[in-house]
Amino acid sequence: MKFGYFDDNAKEYVITSPKTPLPWINYLGCEDFFSLVSNTCGGYSFYKDAKLLRLTRYRYNNVPGDSNGHYYYIKEGNTIWNPGWMPTKTDLDSYECHHGIGYSIFKGNKNDLAAELTDFVPIGSTCEINKLTMTNHSKEEKHFSIFSYVEFCLWNAMDDMTNFQRNYSIGEVEIHGSAIYHKTEYRERRNHYAVYSVNAPIAGFDTSRDAFLGAYGENSAPDVVVSGSCKNSVASGWAPVGSHQLDVTLAPGESRTYVFVLGYVENLAAEKWVGRPEDGIINRTPAEKLLEKFNTTEKADQALADLKAYWEKLLSHFTVSSKEEKLDRMVNIWHQYQCMVTFNMSRSASYYESGIGRGMGFRDSCQDLLGFVHLIPDRARQRILDIASTQFEDGSAYHQYQPLTKKGNSDIGSGFNDDPLWLIAGTAAYIKETGDYSILDERTPYDNDDSKATDLMEHLRRSFHYTMEHRGPHKLPLIGRADWNDCLNLNCFSTEPGESFQTFGPSEGPNAESVFIAGMFVRYGKDYVEICRHRGMAEEAALAEEAIADMEKTVLDAGWDGEWFLRAYDHYKNKIGSKECEDGKIYIEPQGFCVMAEIGLKEGNCLKAMESVEKYLDTKYGIVLLQPPYHRYHVELGEISSYPPGYKENAGIFCHNNPWISIAETVVGRGNRAWQVYTRTCPAYIEDISEIHRTEPYVYSQMIAGKDAPNFGEAKNSWLTGTAAWTFLNASQYILGIRPDYDGLIVDPCIPSFMDGFTAKRDFRGTTYHIEVENPNHVEKGIASVTVDGNAIEGNLIPVDASKKEVHVKIIMG
Amino acid sequence: MKFGYFDDNAKEYVITSPKTPLPWINYLGCEDFFSLVSNTCGGYSFYKDAKLLRLTRYRYNNVPGDSNGHYYYIKEGNTIWNPGWMPTKTDLDSYECHHGIGYSIFKGNKNDLAAELTDFVPIGSTCEINKLTMTNHSKEEKHFSIFSYVEFCLWNAMDDMTNFQRNYSIGEVEIHGSAIYHKTEYRERRNHYAVYSVNAPIAGFDTSRDAFLGAYGENSAPDVVVSGSCKNSVASGWAPVGSHQLDVTLAPGESRTYVFVLGYVENLAAEKWVGRPEDGIINRTPAEKLLEKFNTTEKADQALADLKAYWEKLLSHFTVSSKEEKLDRMVNIWHQYQCMVTFNMSRSASYYESGIGRGMGFRDSCQDLLGFVHLIPDRARQRILDIASTQFEDGSAYHQYQPLTKKGNSDIGSGFNDDPLWLIAGTAAYIKETGDYSILDERTPYDNDDSKATDLMEHLRRSFHYTMEHRGPHKLPLIGRADWNDCLNLNCFSTEPGESFQTFGPSEGPNAESVFIAGMFVRYGKDYVEICRHRGMAEEAALAEEAIADMEKTVLDAGWDGEWFLRAYDHYKNKIGSKECEDGKIYIEPQGFCVMAEIGLKEGNCLKAMESVEKYLDTKYGIVLLQPPYHRYHVELGEISSYPPGYKENAGIFCHNNPWISIAETVVGRGNRAWQVYTRTCPAYIEDISEIHRTEPYVYSQMIAGKDAPNFGEAKNSWLTGTAAWTFLNASQYILGIRPDYDGLIVDPCIPSFMDGFTAKRDFRGTTYHIEVENPNHVEKGIASVTVDGNAIEGNLIPVDASKKEVHVKIIMG
Repeated sequence: MKFGYFDDNAKEYVITSPKTPLPWINYLGCEDFFSLVSNTCGGYSFYKDAKLLRLTRYRYNNVPGDSNGHYYYIKEGNTIWNPGWMPTKTDLDSYECHHGIGYSIFKGNKNDLAAELTDFVPIGSTCEINKLTMTNHSKEEKHFSIFSYVEFCLWNAMDDMTNFQRNYSIGEVEIHGSAIYHKTEYRERRNHYAVYSVNAPIAGFDTSRDAFLGAYGENSAPDVVVSGSCKNSVASGWAPVGSHQLDVTLAPGESRTYVFVLGYVENLAAEKWVGRPEDGIINRTPAEKLLEKFNTTEKADQALADLKAYWEKLLSHFTVSSKEEKLDRMVNIWHQYQCMVTFNMSRSASYYESGIGRGMGFRDSCQDLLGFVHLIPDRARQRILDIASTQFEDGSAYHQYQPLTKKGNSDIGSGFNDDPLWLIAGTAAYIKETGDYSILDERTPYDNDDSKATDLMEHLRRSFHYTMEHRGPHKLPLIGRADWNDCLNLNCFSTEPGESFQTFGPSEGPNAESVFIAGMFVRYGKDYVEICRHRGMAEEAALAEEAIADMEKTVLDAGWDGEWFLRAYDHYKNKIGSKECEDGKIYIEPQGFCVMAEIGLKEGNCLKAMESVEKYLDTKYGIVLLQPPYHRYHVELGEISSYPPGYKENAGIFCHNNPWISIAETVVGRGNRAWQVYTRTCPAYIEDISEIHRTEPYVYSQMIAGKDAPNFGEAKNSWLTGTAAWTFLNASQYILGIRPDYDGLIVDPCIPSFMDGFTAKRDFRGTTYHIEVENPNHVEKGIASVTVDGNAIEGNLIPVDASKKEVHVKIIMG
Repeated sequence: MKFGYFDDNAKEYVITSPKTPLPWINYLGCEDFFSLVSNTCGGYSFYKDAKLLRLTRYRYNNVPGDSNGHYYYIKEGNTIWNPGWMPTKTDLDSYECHHGIGYSIFKGNKNDLAAELTDFVPIGSTCEINKLTMTNHSKEEKHFSIFSYVEFCLWNAMDDMTNFQRNYSIGEVEIHGSAIYHKTEYRERRNHYAVYSVNAPIAGFDTSRDAFLGAYGENSAPDVVVSGSCKNSVASGWAPVGSHQLDVTLAPGESRTYVFVLGYVENLAAEKWVGRPEDGIINRTPAEKLLEKFNTTEKADQALADLKAYWEKLLSHFTVSSKEEKLDRMVNIWHQYQCMVTFNMSRSASYYESGIGRGMGFRDSCQDLLGFVHLIPDRARQRILDIASTQFEDGSAYHQYQPLTKKGNSDIGSGFNDDPLWLIAGTAAYIKETGDYSILDERTPYDNDDSKATDLMEHLRRSFHYTMEHRGPHKLPLIGRADWNDCLNLNCFSTEPGESFQTFGPSEGPNAESVFIAGMFVRYGKDYVEICRHRGMAEEAALAEEAIADMEKTVLDAGWDGEWFLRAYDHYKNKIGSKECEDGKIYIEPQGFCVMAEIGLKEGNCLKAMESVEKYLDTKYGIVLLQPPYHRYHVELGEISSYPPGYKENAGIFCHNNPWISIAETVVGRGNRAWQVYTRTCPAYIEDISEIHRTEPYVYSQMIAGKDAPNFGEAKNSWLTGTAAWTFLNASQYILGIRPDYDGLIVDPCIPSFMDGFTAKRDFRGTTYHIEVENPNHVEKGIASVTVDGNAIEGNLIPVDASKKEVHVKIIMG
């Protein structure tokens, strides 16, 4: 069952019923100001940091669901409705929500009155624009009122939801003309406020929630809207809100457009006030400048056009055209869009991540980078340096860092022993994309201490050596607190509720080892070797090669279970992910990474591992993380066994590592299987089962309930997942096979045999590559011939030629 | 305007409209299981710790307001209603909420069907009972359904409201007969679950919120209730709830009673499961035993009777009878009840304290003790030892400690330099009440380290000396991070939002001094001297007396501003609370404490200070904390200047220190004024302005907006305030003047001159004192004669005579 459709020309998903199984959201903003917006106009805004600078209040896990947003009420006679259905839930004569790239449009009609609401965050400004066009489609003159409504958050979202004995006394506002200023705490240490305005004279306003809603009021029927007349309330404490009243008359066929702006404004400390601070009148000059930028419909339309052009350009760097409409749609639009959102948000603010719990993950951010480095290489470069700056001198790393300060989060600390290797992965991806080795020369601090800075190359060296030197009884890498995905906590041994599995117990034990990290070591160690070679560090390269070879041997000796790769050894040196185990006999992660690392490729281990994944972990909705699920808590394993069977890491379909298997299948050359794995969790391919999948059909979720769960197939935690990056990497670099490498662009497709071929356009180091792939013999992998601008070449590495703006590549598979 | 009335016989406040200005709540439970319940059945339950072991989910600051509670829906035909009005808000034919002492009763009638719901937590059991009696008052047989509803919290209230990427996947339940078991995380480290049951066969149940409410559903109209038929849903992840359906037929005049129980149950680790842990069937035996205790109406009624008897006995220790009905009501019932609630809750869980933010305050708990020591001296004794155990070896103290572990909270740390003296205050109050000096011999750790333990007397010594030895340029005590009430942060100098005023900056500076602490030092130093004397520590007593005399002189030299006592000196050695200041010229705290300490009593400073309070700080709704309010942020003062004028410490009417002034007025003998101060904030005396005051008319709030605020007279933060203890102390020991002392009971009334006298009954050290006070000459203070059992005595100290069970005291004022 579907609740809408893809409009690929507009790059939109069009939702045709407000009653989606869960709220389906979009992200507005790509610089510093962000909004989450659902298909019923729910959501909230923040500036830079969703915890510390939240503009509007949202209530997670609330009843009624998805409550609070940026709402517009239309009151015509006794009928009150919203263009996005919520919160009145008045039945609309027609409804559409268009989630586009960086904007959302809501089209609601009721009694021949049409509302079209366009929400977006313009490039270069710190505000959200809500452009509302009302059209009278009837034959009579229409008189109605519009009431806008936002509820302000008192900036710190955590404090806002806990510290009421203070918060109920601090709310402050100012009103000037049509502009409502939310200035709570501006009197003291804040130098910023919010402004909410409309480009028209207003009939009145409200800024007190209690006044607007009325005693025991609800968003579904605010007192002010029901009565049709605002109260011009001035909030003092309690809950400040912003509401404008506009009284409108429209002749038959007439339209009118209003531009509402919700903005974030900072002042210099010396320029906070008009006159004396004691008088408490805020300096509105920068706000007025901001409002002036969007005070006509034309200006707002131009800002939207600029935003669309910005995205059009970004998404033009990689495009594919095949007979697979859904593949093209995902690769050209939604995979890359989701990658950009994970770049912006990390794991901070979604409808499942409350925006207050986590900083940027070291591991997460490095992986996210794999997905967006081709889109915004300059920002990727900065991100790498930011991440590396939180590394410790011994090569280990803070597991998270704070987006505002960019400093490591000492609450979480270090000890996640896969982290260092991800830095190599991210840096290698950046160099392969850009050819910019100069990043390796950048002076980069440790633990944000400039006095300890070295060049980035040295950071990579320490990353590699940290892993090399922290090994256990089987010479496999020690796992530390945990590797991906934080839930196998082999040194934790927690028995008390509330103890964090990630931080309780020692940061490292002497025994617990990870085969997964071993796979990463081999995989990204090879990148490290190549980078060393390029830097002329032949001795280090040789040393690293030897360590890699040794690790490969170690994995084959101690990390192979007969049919698949082991997952780990626990504190007692017992195997995890072995046929010897009662539960958790086979895990997905080492199969993905050891095969991507080509450990035992020649010996057949890789193919065998892939066959075992198919045999033991496959389901119709994707590959589960392990089997059988843990049925009880294992104190020696930690969080993974804390989940009910089939959920999350305990045998859920963790979307993040499904592409690892798909990529691994391309390593063993099984294009059909790689395709099957790709499509089984790919949003566009499962749009038809939206009533089962429930989350948005245009983006990935973190997890789909596995076959052991009662709700098999139900997804959770949409949007902010490493799946975004990995799946784009998989689709673009391994299935389509267009893969940046150190010295050029590799083209090496591994596609389903039914596919005749495809064409693609790829911008790479200043040149645009037009790539045509033909698959006349319907193979899954293999290259019969490669021509570049009509000339046949050996191999499938298209060398860089900076003199060319355009290059035409033709590949015949076979 | 009133929204109800006091029923003094029943010891109840009866609310007659559900639409009170704010939710008016009650507390159920006096041991380990607690519930908050509002007049519309909102609220939640927890076991011991409101943050870590919360049973049901409540949403603070929500829209709709006060949402989530323990609800019962009645569906008769198409009419759906609740006995407490919420959440359907269906108009009732009649409504009453009786908030009693430890129980609440809701009486709702609709269409001749009557519901009477009695909520209480029985003594000795870890559960809440909801006894629901339905009566058919019509002449027709009635058929209707009852749907119960609670939403479970996933135990850790903080995690529950932030960590959705995990929490949406962990919810688990079991259903057996009429019992719904909420067992989330029981599979792993928890050894406890919740049970919600009813003593009757059920037509069905629901445990999934989504199933119960329906898609986009609301508490006001759950899908299941609207349709009239439950879904027997079994929650798996998302939001587990508990709902029973009962289909009922009642003949005309017939009644039926159901007993619902919501319980908390723990199992030993070895007894968690029935059979293997892998099978995941919880051991229900203890739950079944709990349910059996209340499985008939008679058993539930007996439990309620036991609860009432428990309270009746507690409240019999001190009673007054005067012609002032409101005084008697407050002293005999509500003051003492609020004291017990602050003992139980400290500042953790109210409708303003979210239950997750704070531990027990060192200062708070010592003060709370002043109010409940006569009710439960054994628990007061333990509380003192718990508090003292968090003291540091140098005499300073953790400012807060955790109720579950009883360990100091290192996030807040120490440096609140009034803390140590409160330990002397609390211990002195305990000794005066009980005569039990043996508490001073108790071995008591420092920083919870047993190896560092000394006797409690040594703790007191270190408290006194800590203050004596930490003094500034004027020889006044250094303020440290802050004294009461945490908001004058003279060493903080915070410029960045989000920095805690209480913990940012150094814990102590060399200059900033507190006149308030000086007043405390003198006041409680005198108690320290007496205790030393009793212990035979003559030398120490003499030393202390000298230090106190020196401090008195210091205050009169450096702490007197001409008309009133200064508040402090800041980091720059500038005066705070002086006529030299632009804002904040006069503060309430030092006037209260220096006068209570009788500093300059003979010299006239005390009377002058009291006159200044009346002249500069008085308002019709109480005495504001300071004048004029700070109009801008002062970085050298901190949080106090962060509030808008008139709110909180910035010139709000902080109820906590109004009794200090009232007590201080009794020191200078002005009974009329003491009475005026007492009655202006006393709930029963301002019941008539409930529409202005807004919070409950039976208990104190922390703060009433001052005259500088737009909402002058509006109260906030009801229930959990030191006002409870201080006002009972004031009314009982200073206005009525019945005051325990080391060697007996002092009787020294200071009453308004219109009062003819009063009688009181006071249990004291095993003897019941029947006290009759006559005021024939209508004086405000002074004793003409005292007779004890008919014999005149010198002075007004009634000596202890353990041989007597009853003593009759007659006082003639004059």
